Amino acid sequence: MVTLINVFTVEPANQQRLVGLLIRATESLVNRAPGFISSTLHRSVDGTKVTMYAQWRSAQDYQAMRQDPGPLPFLEEPLTISTFEPGLYKIVRTFRPACERPQRR
Amino acid sequence: MVTLINVFTVEPANQQRLVGLLIRATESLVNRAPGFISSTLHRSVDGTKVTMYAQWRSAQDYQAMRQDPGPLPFLEEPLTISTFEPGLYKIVRTFRPACERPQRR
Repeated sequence: MVTLINVFTVEPANQQRLVGLLIRATESLVNRAPGFISSTLHRSVDGTKVTMYAQWRSAQDYQAMRQDPGPLPFLEEPLTISTFEPGLYKIVRTFRPACERPQRR
Repeated sequence: MVTLINVFTVEPANQQRLVGLLIRATESLVNRAPGFISSTLHRSVDGTKVTMYAQWRSAQDYQAMRQDPGPLPFLEEPLTISTFEPGLYKIVRTFRPACERPQRR
């Protein structure tokens, strides 16, 4: 399994529009691609970034989706209002709290 | 809940050392801080990045940990061999495959 962490940098005035474009691209195309496992879309509190955190079965599956001409327009429109820094990762380790405490609510 | 996605950029020769420093910082200090929920450490396949994806109860809890003089040396040593782009996020949405298929193994 591989993890994609793709950071989009955007003008705060365009953050909501970018979020909408990425939802549309994911729901209409990416989530039907072979090897797609799950993804989570995040908006930065300061308005300047939108980050997609995604798990795929393999780097090859992700590359095949990116090279498919079907999704291309959906993937290119976000880049008209943002810059994009992709990252392909392997998970090293997951951490939990050292000692569980009752959490205040 | 808030999500921190902190991207460290590093020389590939130093990636493994940076991973070690971040494991030490998380296991000795961060995972004892109030409000820490979980984190996952990632190394980029190309060697140039290390990214920590973390969930905290609130931005205030995360800031309190960052300002505590205890963890400070552990958090500063990684910055001697990397540059750091922090990001504080809210989750917009999580996506699953549109239609579940048998996964090849």
